[in-house]
Amino acid sequence: MAFKKSNFAAATALFAIGAKAVNNGLALTPQMGWDNWNALGCDVSEDLLVETADLIVNYGLKDLGYKYVILDDCWSAGRNASNNNTLIVDTEKFPRGMKAVADDIHDLGLLFGMYSDAGRYTCGMYEGSLGYETEDANFFADVGIDYLKYDNCYNEGYAGNQQISSARYRTMGNALNATGRPILYSLCNWGEDYPWNWGSTIANSWRISGDIFDNWDEYDARCPCEGPDAWNCELPGFHCSVTNIFSKVAFIVSKAQPGSWNDLDMLEVGRGAMNDAEYVAHFSMWSAVKSPLIMGNDIRIIKPQDLSILSNAAVIAVNQDPLGQSAARRWLYQTNTTDVDENGKAEIQMWSGNLKSTISADYNDYVVLLVNGNNNATVMNATLEDIFVDSGPKGTAPQVQMSWEVRDLWADRMSNETAAAIINTPTKSGNATTGYNATTIGQGRYNATTTSYADGLMANSSLLLGSVVTTVQPSGTIIANVDRHGVAMFRLRAIPTAVRKRDEL
Amino acid sequence: MAFKKSNFAAATALFAIGAKAVNNGLALTPQMGWDNWNALGCDVSEDLLVETADLIVNYGLKDLGYKYVILDDCWSAGRNASNNNTLIVDTEKFPRGMKAVADDIHDLGLLFGMYSDAGRYTCGMYEGSLGYETEDANFFADVGIDYLKYDNCYNEGYAGNQQISSARYRTMGNALNATGRPILYSLCNWGEDYPWNWGSTIANSWRISGDIFDNWDEYDARCPCEGPDAWNCELPGFHCSVTNIFSKVAFIVSKAQPGSWNDLDMLEVGRGAMNDAEYVAHFSMWSAVKSPLIMGNDIRIIKPQDLSILSNAAVIAVNQDPLGQSAARRWLYQTNTTDVDENGKAEIQMWSGNLKSTISADYNDYVVLLVNGNNNATVMNATLEDIFVDSGPKGTAPQVQMSWEVRDLWADRMSNETAAAIINTPTKSGNATTGYNATTIGQGRYNATTTSYADGLMANSSLLLGSVVTTVQPSGTIIANVDRHGVAMFRLRAIPTAVRKRDEL
Amino acid sequence: MAFKKSNFAAATALFAIGAKAVNNGLALTPQMGWDNWNALGCDVSEDLLVETADLIVNYGLKDLGYKYVILDDCWSAGRNASNNNTLIVDTEKFPRGMKAVADDIHDLGLLFGMYSDAGRYTCGMYEGSLGYETEDANFFADVGIDYLKYDNCYNEGYAGNQQISSARYRTMGNALNATGRPILYSLCNWGEDYPWNWGSTIANSWRISGDIFDNWDEYDARCPCEGPDAWNCELPGFHCSVTNIFSKVAFIVSKAQPGSWNDLDMLEVGRGAMNDAEYVAHFSMWSAVKSPLIMGNDIRIIKPQDLSILSNAAVIAVNQDPLGQSAARRWLYQTNTTDVDENGKAEIQMWSGNLKSTISADYNDYVVLLVNGNNNATVMNATLEDIFVDSGPKGTAPQVQMSWEVRDLWADRMSNETAAAIINTPTKSGNATTGYNATTIGQGRYNATTTSYADGLMANSSLLLGSVVTTVQPSGTIIANVDRHGVAMFRLRAIPTAVRKRDEL
Amino acid sequence: MAFKKSNFAAATALFAIGAKAVNNGLALTPQMGWDNWNALGCDVSEDLLVETADLIVNYGLKDLGYKYVILDDCWSAGRNASNNNTLIVDTEKFPRGMKAVADDIHDLGLLFGMYSDAGRYTCGMYEGSLGYETEDANFFADVGIDYLKYDNCYNEGYAGNQQISSARYRTMGNALNATGRPILYSLCNWGEDYPWNWGSTIANSWRISGDIFDNWDEYDARCPCEGPDAWNCELPGFHCSVTNIFSKVAFIVSKAQPGSWNDLDMLEVGRGAMNDAEYVAHFSMWSAVKSPLIMGNDIRIIKPQDLSILSNAAVIAVNQDPLGQSAARRWLYQTNTTDVDENGKAEIQMWSGNLKSTISADYNDYVVLLVNGNNNATVMNATLEDIFVDSGPKGTAPQVQMSWEVRDLWADRMSNETAAAIINTPTKSGNATTGYNATTIGQGRYNATTTSYADGLMANSSLLLGSVVTTVQPSGTIIANVDRHGVAMFRLRAIPTAVRKRDEL
Repeated sequence: MAFKKSNFAAATALFAIGAKAVNNGLALTPQMGWDNWNALGCDVSEDLLVETADLIVNYGLKDLGYKYVILDDCWSAGRNASNNNTLIVDTEKFPRGMKAVADDIHDLGLLFGMYSDAGRYTCGMYEGSLGYETEDANFFADVGIDYLKYDNCYNEGYAGNQQISSARYRTMGNALNATGRPILYSLCNWGEDYPWNWGSTIANSWRISGDIFDNWDEYDARCPCEGPDAWNCELPGFHCSVTNIFSKVAFIVSKAQPGSWNDLDMLEVGRGAMNDAEYVAHFSMWSAVKSPLIMGNDIRIIKPQDLSILSNAAVIAVNQDPLGQSAARRWLYQTNTTDVDENGKAEIQMWSGNLKSTISADYNDYVVLLVNGNNNATVMNATLEDIFVDSGPKGTAPQVQMSWEVRDLWADRMSNETAAAIINTPTKSGNATTGYNATTIGQGRYNATTTSYADGLMANSSLLLGSVVTTVQPSGTIIANVDRHGVAMFRLRAIPTAVRKRDEL
Repeated sequence: MAFKKSNFAAATALFAIGAKAVNNGLALTPQMGWDNWNALGCDVSEDLLVETADLIVNYGLKDLGYKYVILDDCWSAGRNASNNNTLIVDTEKFPRGMKAVADDIHDLGLLFGMYSDAGRYTCGMYEGSLGYETEDANFFADVGIDYLKYDNCYNEGYAGNQQISSARYRTMGNALNATGRPILYSLCNWGEDYPWNWGSTIANSWRISGDIFDNWDEYDARCPCEGPDAWNCELPGFHCSVTNIFSKVAFIVSKAQPGSWNDLDMLEVGRGAMNDAEYVAHFSMWSAVKSPLIMGNDIRIIKPQDLSILSNAAVIAVNQDPLGQSAARRWLYQTNTTDVDENGKAEIQMWSGNLKSTISADYNDYVVLLVNGNNNATVMNATLEDIFVDSGPKGTAPQVQMSWEVRDLWADRMSNETAAAIINTPTKSGNATTGYNATTIGQGRYNATTTSYADGLMANSSLLLGSVVTTVQPSGTIIANVDRHGVAMFRLRAIPTAVRKRDEL
Repeated sequence: MAFKKSNFAAATALFAIGAKAVNNGLALTPQMGWDNWNALGCDVSEDLLVETADLIVNYGLKDLGYKYVILDDCWSAGRNASNNNTLIVDTEKFPRGMKAVADDIHDLGLLFGMYSDAGRYTCGMYEGSLGYETEDANFFADVGIDYLKYDNCYNEGYAGNQQISSARYRTMGNALNATGRPILYSLCNWGEDYPWNWGSTIANSWRISGDIFDNWDEYDARCPCEGPDAWNCELPGFHCSVTNIFSKVAFIVSKAQPGSWNDLDMLEVGRGAMNDAEYVAHFSMWSAVKSPLIMGNDIRIIKPQDLSILSNAAVIAVNQDPLGQSAARRWLYQTNTTDVDENGKAEIQMWSGNLKSTISADYNDYVVLLVNGNNNATVMNATLEDIFVDSGPKGTAPQVQMSWEVRDLWADRMSNETAAAIINTPTKSGNATTGYNATTIGQGRYNATTTSYADGLMANSSLLLGSVVTTVQPSGTIIANVDRHGVAMFRLRAIPTAVRKRDEL
Repeated sequence: MAFKKSNFAAATALFAIGAKAVNNGLALTPQMGWDNWNALGCDVSEDLLVETADLIVNYGLKDLGYKYVILDDCWSAGRNASNNNTLIVDTEKFPRGMKAVADDIHDLGLLFGMYSDAGRYTCGMYEGSLGYETEDANFFADVGIDYLKYDNCYNEGYAGNQQISSARYRTMGNALNATGRPILYSLCNWGEDYPWNWGSTIANSWRISGDIFDNWDEYDARCPCEGPDAWNCELPGFHCSVTNIFSKVAFIVSKAQPGSWNDLDMLEVGRGAMNDAEYVAHFSMWSAVKSPLIMGNDIRIIKPQDLSILSNAAVIAVNQDPLGQSAARRWLYQTNTTDVDENGKAEIQMWSGNLKSTISADYNDYVVLLVNGNNNATVMNATLEDIFVDSGPKGTAPQVQMSWEVRDLWADRMSNETAAAIINTPTKSGNATTGYNATTIGQGRYNATTTSYADGLMANSSLLLGSVVTTVQPSGTIIANVDRHGVAMFRLRAIPTAVRKRDEL
């Protein structure tokens, strides 16, 4: 009542950061793209990249924002000792050399990413860049890459505290910057030595865990850190489940900001071992916490239901929201004695976070995520008090006293039939400019190439906002029946009233 | 009986330290003041500071000891490359520049604090001081500040062990000392790398945790370290509850000493999400462990009950006690199966600690704090054996064989009516010299400007000693019915008897 | 069904690494041999080594691959200050000097290993090599050693993070390489500072724990790290049980690769305090995870049943498999409330891992290990879904849809009668070239000197493949009744069908 | 049966280390003496030292081995800037200067120890030696000290890993050695950064925990590390209970060896808050693990029962055993649900360890310690299998097949009457040479000044061997009814039989 505008504005501004990026000006929203590793490992080739790039265009994924086509490990064949130790491209895999590949990808309106390693060898035992940062940055710039994923294998012991690790990664960051070419710099040191503390000033994202595996919540000894102490993991391992990684970001959501992001690793959507609900949840979770969205499936054999997930612009719009603030976990309950799944787990959690207002209101939109890790569908509740706790605990946030439009972000998911039709349309039917739009298949999808998510949100594009399912009253509760290993994901929009109108700029 | 005086004196002297401060001679008792961050974040301006400073004087807070008016983050606008990289003040927020603000504050008899960060950027993404320590120390001295809060964001990886972090913070300490101006140096590195081990020789206080949140005991994943292993927290986080932070100081109470203090972060009293009992407890706990008392509420909208809490001179006198010894936790019981609160917690604890004798007796006064984390009011007991365990465990302390006057330090709390009257008195009715005393409102409050707490205690000022509620007999027990999420806080004074009189100096 | 060949090939290739070794080209499969420490400690002499070397030849152990005869600590007598600080051999123990011993061992077709320490002293308080790496590497090369075990005692504080420890160990690695003599370099730093992260580029193996003790699962406070947090052990200790060490390798199996191995410490087989089932399990576990197999018993008093275990070529062939991939733990269940043993433990676990195909099939062979830590024999199950999880979780691995030949690797274990006959044959009855084959005792044993394990596997040698016990059908389960504290160990071979034939190279 | 002598000898020799000390040749057995800190803190003076030294002689403590009289903190008064920054002795406390005190102490046949700190200040805020190591070592040598206790307060951030801390402590060690005076060097860095790993080559002992408190098992938050993870304590704290510290040494018993010892901190015997059984246990535990035995009580007011404990030569002989091997914990059971004490604890444990044979047998003597932490007296059992596990687990140790004489080391404890008579004899009745022997009081006590413990043990002195209480048969069990919070402590001596006679030297 006596609440002053200035007071509240400050409350929401506490951790807001201006539009300026911390680093090289790139990745003001989380990067989107595709990387071959999860599905194909070392089985790389020019054909794979070019064919996939074509499909990314033709399936409309490019226009949804998946811009970076990233070649992972295993592409090189040593160094040329007689030419300044320049890396040599494996011409069996890339017979025309790498620059030709880059050109092809650029010609499609896409961006090209490559991979190296801050160590003696890459994880696949190819030449690493440690000690050759300048040479390799120049090589990459000459190739014309737009993105570097920089791994952590065989790092020769240059790890063990933040100073040691940050120095090693900064060397390459400086070398990339020195080339003059804008190259998004993606750290892949698996969360070792707290990269969220030092990564933002040298890079655009940093991995927070060992490698993901196509699994919802199975414990694997090779990814040993789970539970409330998971933040303290000096053995990041690999074969980490979706929930394992998601639990790790809960501690550090505040570290995400425009220009530098917590990277939960590439998506497993469509890889085949999780079911549709799990992939929907996985994609929603990664989006809500502003992880880069890098597809990890083999696009050449994509299934309709997976294309449908990856194409949900309303969820992507959360990820690409111009505020660039991660959702945060509001609560997690472990109910391991009832309704446990085959891995002995049963936990439910609620996350929420700030989104830019799409109604030019005083109050931001908000994303709400209900995650059900129980073994059966579960009716879950999210109170406004809990959702808005960051604007004031114990119900003191002014938003709790308002009414909110609740929009289901999965309500308008593309049908499998439409997705199948897109997939079954002969490839290269479109072209680099018009993409799939050359046909009528998939018409009406969101096109971020022409209208950025920020602009689309401001323009109230219905493709980005899901469907209203209910209104929640002041001090109310959102209730949803959530699938086993699934999510409910909502966008909340303030319902303006006279008394709450913006009275000043 | 055969107890020798020399033996006991030694027992209490084990960790006593002389009056000399470890560092720059400042903060012989914990600093008191106000900082805008908790309530207002980046919403700073000249008007805010000057208006607040006026209110601090007019509400009598200055004369209670709240001397430092601290401008937190978001005040700068880059560096002047053509002028030795001097920091530029944001003239939209501070149109007359910062020196004018400092002058105004000084004219009120207050002291002025500012903020910077031992990193590339401040937490709000303004220019940090890392690499510019000398330039910035000179700038601050030129402005005329009396206090520097020095944060830890974007520290470029210069963290990971005590040597690395201490070197970074020492650089600024040396630069401040080199200016010749006495500037209280307040480390804000969130307890990273054990600042209690190295902070005392370079600074006057060090934060021991991530940022506080206006909450009693709710777990937030962003402040992950709780429980018996909470001392080992390399991810300090933020959104830490009052009890979370209080539990962390339990391990390191011995590190507080005149000139260098454990900083539990700024007060949340009056911020609105905790109830009166919780704020009373919060203020009592911070006082007892000798945390700096920096108000974090918006003084312009202070409520009477909160002014009443912040004005309790008898509690402040514990904080400002000339011995400068922190109370220590004597016991904590978690009874999580009964009477748990909405966050699933139910723990009770007792703390006690040395205070300077106010009766010139052989034996010091003592503060006793009973904290009730249960979900309902609880009758709690504190035995003399437990209270005085540091002078001899298992009841061997001579104090256990004595009788003690038990004084309730909250008994004489200012009424809401009086507090409301103070608040409702037109501001600037007083002046910088006479403050609120120019009116009759609030008359009879303690005035530390004219009589230091040390002097007031020696003079037996009734305003500092609470009210006697009972006498506890030898080997006796203090019993109190403590509010849900509240405290009982007592000062114990030895009841002199012939046999225990001081027989030598 | 629509599964593409290329997709699956990639799946198995994810972590495959080419034949090239990471380091000095040695130990492309884990080293095998004998070291005197476990059984004899400092009680070393020329006679011990020569007598043991003879027995290793005569008992057929050399031809099974146990090539390295390693002299551990306590062989030196200071440094010669007047001769470049060269180490002095203790001539009471080695009256002919060490080169003569090396020559004798080499004459038997064996290789010679010695011991030093990356510290001021060895663990037995003899001269350490810290600061004398070049001198000592030259000494060792002059002696003609083929193997250096390099310990970690008295390291003068050069430990505490990966950078510090790796630098200390790299110094000796460089010095060894500089001699020009191929010397297998075995790190013995007990897993301190994560040697699996940096050991591979400087050495051929690294210990992962404190010293082993001849015990199945008894907790010893001197080896304090057990359970799910055991990966985080800065106090490696000693007196570690077999299961303690085995649990530690579960986190880091991916670090084993040709040329550099996780070393679980020397074998306790035959040391006398475990029973036959426990030794069988111990030997199987070490083999499956590609630990070096260094016998630790006194060969001069070997018992028939222990010779039988150490001689199981079918199990050794798993260890020496040319793929060089460690098995991984698929599950572990602690059922501490039922059937606990005398140490209060009851856990069962299943491990599996890739082996090179012995049928030139598309699909690799696989090793399956069922470990029973219960107090009684237990019927255990391993599903194909769990066995092949790395090729696709949740049953998506194509191998799950196949049938597999299940071969018991312990079925053809040498009888005690045969082993006794070998032992009781007068030593030196054979000679260095023909070894035990000069007699008819033990005829038909595998001879890796003439046919490498790789060649023998490709040639389908029946001595390396165990006996078929059953066939498991698609989506089926392997069932075995496993001894108390014992294992079942199987080799799975794909049963080729027309549809699954390799259709391309 | 077929057990070979050489085999067993090796088994027991595994960790035996020759007589040579690792460092400066001092402390071949743990140092014994007295330090003023525990009882008197900063209340130090010449009179205190001289009076106490006299009493140490007159009460026969000197001749029991308590040789070092150690002046702890608070003796200095700054540095003399005009005299090479030499430390200045506080002449109020030490009017004749410190050399005179040293001379007096030396004249009594005692040795003199002093205190400094590897930091800016001592813990009591006096001048520390960091940066002044050479000056201060020279000062100490000039004074004529024989012992330096070197503390860890205010260490300016030079901590955080083994390399940093060891370098800081090595500097003083080198400076002490450079003086040419033999000075026992006692590290007091509270177990920070694993001093047991690096302390042995630079010093004679190292503290393993925070400061002791006069308490059996009460948890104090200021000493937060307890339980199975207590080895991993970066916050050593203070106010550690006897059982807290004892549990910490369990992990590192192997680090004790002649010349360098785990220091469990000074004794609390006689300080007044524990009962007799607890002090007996405390003294026994410290003795068994070869901690230095530094009395911490005020000798001037010693009580007879405490003198009796400190005078038990049979227990001291375990501590001073020439083998210098620590006992190790064989088992610990926590039975927290039954018979818990007032601190909620109930744990029983058994320790045993090697002692030099007092019967010139093949087999060493052995010490057995049964510690009862239950709330009531408890009948406890120790099997020979568990006692001798280090010589062979699971009953394979040859000692298990032997019979053993069980000698109760507390059976012959001095009576309170005798102790009272010693205390009540006018001081200075004896003299520096003859000590208390000048009277008949206390006659027949062991005199280590004339006969070292090593010689006394070899001579079968009945004063060192306790009394036989039983014989335990092969595979037998020792049974004892152990006091609440008490111990049973036995020396086992092999009962020689013809078949087990030593057949070779």
